[in-house]
This record gives sequence, structure tokens and C-alpha cells, in this order.
Amino acid sequence: MHKDLIVVDGLQYSNWNRQIFEQLREGGVTMVHVTIVYHEQIRETLLRIAEWNRHFEYNSDLIMPIKSTADIRLAKELGKVGIMFGAQNCSPIEDDIGMVEVMRELNLMIMQLTYNNQSLLACGCYEAEDSGVTRFGKQVIQEMNRVGMVVDMSHSGERSTLDAIELSERPIVISHANPTSFHAAKRNKSDTVLKALGESGGLLGFSLYPFHLKNGSDCTLDDFCDMVASTADLMGIDHIGIGTDLCQDQPLSVLEWMRNGRWSKEKDYGEGSKSNADWPSPLSWFRDSRDFPNITAGLQARGFSDEDVAKVMGLNWVNYLDEALRPQR
Amino acid sequence: MHKDLIVVDGLQYSNWNRQIFEQLREGGVTMVHVTIVYHEQIRETLLRIAEWNRHFEYNSDLIMPIKSTADIRLAKELGKVGIMFGAQNCSPIEDDIGMVEVMRELNLMIMQLTYNNQSLLACGCYEAEDSGVTRFGKQVIQEMNRVGMVVDMSHSGERSTLDAIELSERPIVISHANPTSFHAAKRNKSDTVLKALGESGGLLGFSLYPFHLKNGSDCTLDDFCDMVASTADLMGIDHIGIGTDLCQDQPLSVLEWMRNGRWSKEKDYGEGSKSNADWPSPLSWFRDSRDFPNITAGLQARGFSDEDVAKVMGLNWVNYLDEALRPQR
Repeated sequence: MHKDLIVVDGLQYSNWNRQIFEQLREGGVTMVHVTIVYHEQIRETLLRIAEWNRHFEYNSDLIMPIKSTADIRLAKELGKVGIMFGAQNCSPIEDDIGMVEVMRELNLMIMQLTYNNQSLLACGCYEAEDSGVTRFGKQVIQEMNRVGMVVDMSHSGERSTLDAIELSERPIVISHANPTSFHAAKRNKSDTVLKALGESGGLLGFSLYPFHLKNGSDCTLDDFCDMVASTADLMGIDHIGIGTDLCQDQPLSVLEWMRNGRWSKEKDYGEGSKSNADWPSPLSWFRDSRDFPNITAGLQARGFSDEDVAKVMGLNWVNYLDEALRPQR
Repeated sequence: MHKDLIVVDGLQYSNWNRQIFEQLREGGVTMVHVTIVYHEQIRETLLRIAEWNRHFEYNSDLIMPIKSTADIRLAKELGKVGIMFGAQNCSPIEDDIGMVEVMRELNLMIMQLTYNNQSLLACGCYEAEDSGVTRFGKQVIQEMNRVGMVVDMSHSGERSTLDAIELSERPIVISHANPTSFHAAKRNKSDTVLKALGESGGLLGFSLYPFHLKNGSDCTLDDFCDMVASTADLMGIDHIGIGTDLCQDQPLSVLEWMRNGRWSKEKDYGEGSKSNADWPSPLSWFRDSRDFPNITAGLQARGFSDEDVAKVMGLNWVNYLDEALRPQR
């Protein structure tokens, strides 16, 4: 089945270069949702988009931009890796509702309402108290629904996430996180959230970032596949996918930017700690994008049918995006 | 012929609202190139685009954005007015070559390299000395050629304009100006420029802004049509169109912004003077967009064939844009 398999990675933030694009293709990846910004505001976001335009220009044999779901199928057909832009925070719209559509026109297809902290839209998963989606947040969700930009609550708090599921007319996603029941971490999600997400037609992308996994970097492929199986039971097989959170070849400075942005005067260690401040070691069975076939094989070995493996590896993402990226009439 | 006529206005900067959109439709306008910015930089340009998105959202029965030449024909078919974005200065790219493609992705289809003054790219028509297209300007022209953004030299100096015609691999335009031989004004163009423009496959849009016309606001339709005829002889009938420069219902403050931007501490009066600082009175035969049929009738009365009238009124613009807006492969 490997040849026909559509593989979607629901989130990566790698240190993009030609070698990494080649690895994505070698791993059979059809489309990857790439984070283009964390805390970058409007002008800085345009800089990142311009950098991507150079990647597209100089690597057009390997990659192509995703401007609609049809482009995902086209990428598959052409044997290229589709690149879908996303933001891990709402900084690319600053305080301006009009920027939702402007960013969508620039192919920003998915945006988190928060990144760990309180934002103008909602509350992040690291705040002590989550007061839910804000007044501005409600309008932004409505506007994202209108233009066909996906709401992503991966780094949001429980209440804000439940609010967003409820408020959004269109199903939302948690692009990269795991169930708290598998591994208790601020970034992972309760069964309450996951159940509501599944029932609303949304989608969870399973993270392969060691901080989100049982036993961290030592998590086994079997354990990972067990988690997939139990989450399929909870949410339904149509509502799960992959979102590796792979941050390949990034220097420590990028991790520090992700964690501290411009908001923290003291060093914040996020999911790490002062004595464990660096990137986690990668999993032995998922070192980079070339290892996607290991996940496919793991799911098959765990007893998933070919049909269900195809869903988890990419088809669910494609089916979800087919609806989600369509602007409302 | 009126019903089938494709009418293109090669430049307007009106105080956009529903009434003006209705007038455009009433005048049979198929597409109008609207100036979205004069001196606005990147962030401000995005504000203007967001304002246009609201116009499109609330007036979708009347207007539609032009994202390719096919959209011009679609607008004709649907009986809507197509809106094509343009910039009268290069401020929307600031000092950043990467912003050419980013702005093109936001449907900025045409950009002047200068607005009266020296810019980072070239020299404007009000400077004492024109040293031609700059180093940055050469790269920007190349990039505009690549992404399919039209180079417009309406407000540029003679040498810079000749440079741009020469340097640009793809034909350029002077979207709104008249021959100096018809009326001597800094903004009008010499026969040398117009001949080079025509020979290179470019296009001139005739201005109906009184400061660009013989006898100003008293210019007659006959005189205007004579100018069209003699320019057709000079440049060829395929290389001329209309670019009214209509600035309808704009307050004086907007004229002051156009003339002074943020660069002048003293008040600059541009084409006017201290004793004549306000907008010029409109022509009796072109008060607003509803009067386009007067031009059509004037050209017919002047002896232009139906085929040639159709070219001047819009077809030449459409044929030009068919090539010019296509990104290079």
C-alpha cells in the first residue's frame, strides 16, 4: 500500500532546506503543515512567507505550495511534497480582524488561537487560569470560519479549547498533541476535550515530540500504536491523524524563541527545565521524515486494517481539509 | 456595440462606496484598475486590502476582485465590475525584494516605480535630474517580470521611463498620462517615450484628469478624440487605452496626501499651485464613470471603426494583461 498512500504530517517546524525536503519525499510525505511563525507579527510573517517563496522557487522539483485541497492530490500525482502554511500563534493578525482574510489570501491555512500563554483570542495551556475565548476571539473564529482558515487549539487551555469547539461553526483541529491519559503533560488533552473534538467532526494529530509521549524519547512504537488504537476507540477512526511536531535540525536559539518570544525577561523552559533545556533526543523509530514508513508498519502490526492505516496516515487530514479550507458562501 | 463592449479604466482613485460601484456599472465599465495606495508602506497597504475585502464582501452583487485576466471576462459575463489592485508608488514593497511576490499574491497587479519623486527604484517626473533606474530598481523590474506584476511609469521621469522600457523583459505601461505634444505638463510624455513604449509592446492609458489636458477642465471631447487619433498614428492602435485618473468624491485631504505623503514639511501643490490648490473641476463630458459612453460615442464620431473603438475602450488593456499578468515559468 505504500505507493498509493497519502501521508500527511499535521505539523513540522524544521530548519527548512533542500535536504529536509528530500527527506520528506523519501519518507513518502504528500503534504506537511509547516509552521511559518510562532510570535512573529504581521511584517515578520511576510518575511517568512517571502523566505518560503524562495524555497518554492529554488526547489520546485521537490515541493509546492498548497493553496487548496486539490493541491494535495496534485502533489501526490506529481510526486512532490505539498507545503501548507500555518501559524502557531495569532500574532500574524496582531489586533486586526481584517488580517484574517489577508493572511488566508497568502495561504495561511491554519492558525492556533494561542501559544501556551494568554493571547488576545484565548488562553494557552500554561496559564494558571483559563477564562475562555475572548470577545475578539469570538469574532476571529467567525471570520476564520468564513474564509476557510482552520482553528487549531494544540497549545490552548482546556476551557478555551472546549469554547472553540463549541463556538466554531466548522470543526476545528488539535494538530499536534496526545491524550493526557497516555502521558500527563500540560500540552496533552483530556478525554473530555478529545471526545468533544471527535463528536464535532474535528481532528487530532498525534505528536511524536518526546515531551508529549510516555517515557519521552524512549517511548516505543508499540506504545505509540496502542495510544492510536485507544484514541480511535474514544474519538472514532475518522478523527485522528499524525502531527509529528518534528523540529528537525533547529538550533537551541529557535527553541528559546518558541518558548520566550519577546514576552519573557527570565528564561522560560516550556516543557523542559533548567537542567534539561535543550531539544529532546529523537525517537529511535522516528528520527526524521524518512521514518514515516515505520509508523505505517507499526499501525499495520498493531492490527489496523489497510483502510484504517490510510485514514490515520493522511486520508483523514485530506478529508477534513476538503471541507475546512473551502471559503463559506 | 455598447452591450458587448469591454470597457477598461486603466486608473481610478475614487472615494469608494456602493454609489460609485453602481456608477461604474451604469457606465458599462468591465474592469477598473484601482489605486489602493500612494505612499502607504507594507502594513498600511494590508489595511487598504482589508478595506477592499470588506467592499467585496458587502458589494458582491456589483464588484469582484480581479485575480487573473480570465476574471475580467468573467466580470463581463456576470455583469459585475472587476476591480484590479494597483499601487502608485513602490512604498508597498519598502526596501524588500521579497515583497514583490507577496504583494502579487495579494493581487497587487500593477505598481509604479515612482510617484513624482525619486524612489528607491527610479526617478519621478518632478525631480530636477533623473539618473535612471537604480540597482534595486533593476532587480525589482526583473522580479515583477517573473511574478507577472505590471511596471507602470506614469509618474516617472523621462530617462527612468526609457530605462524601464529597455530593462523590462515584458512590455510595461503608462497607465494614465497624455502626450506632451497635446499638452505640455510634467506628467505627460514625450513622443520619444511614447514611440518606444508602443514599439516595445506596451500601452498608454489616456488621462481625463484636467491637469493633463489641453485647456484643462474646458478640454472638449473633440480635442480629446483628436489626441487619441494622433497618438494611434504614433504608437499604433493596439497600444492605447483609457486611464481616466478619476478621483471621484475625494476630499482635499486626499489630494494633499497624494502630493505630500510624509516627505514634505512645506505644502507641495503638485500639478496645482497655492492659488489653485484644490481638485480641478471635472470635464463636462466626463463627470463620473456613468459618462464612459460619451467617450465611446466621441471616438465613433471621430471616425474610428467599431473594431478600433473596442480596442481603445478596453480590448487593448485585456489583451495586454492576458500576457502581462501571467507568471513566468
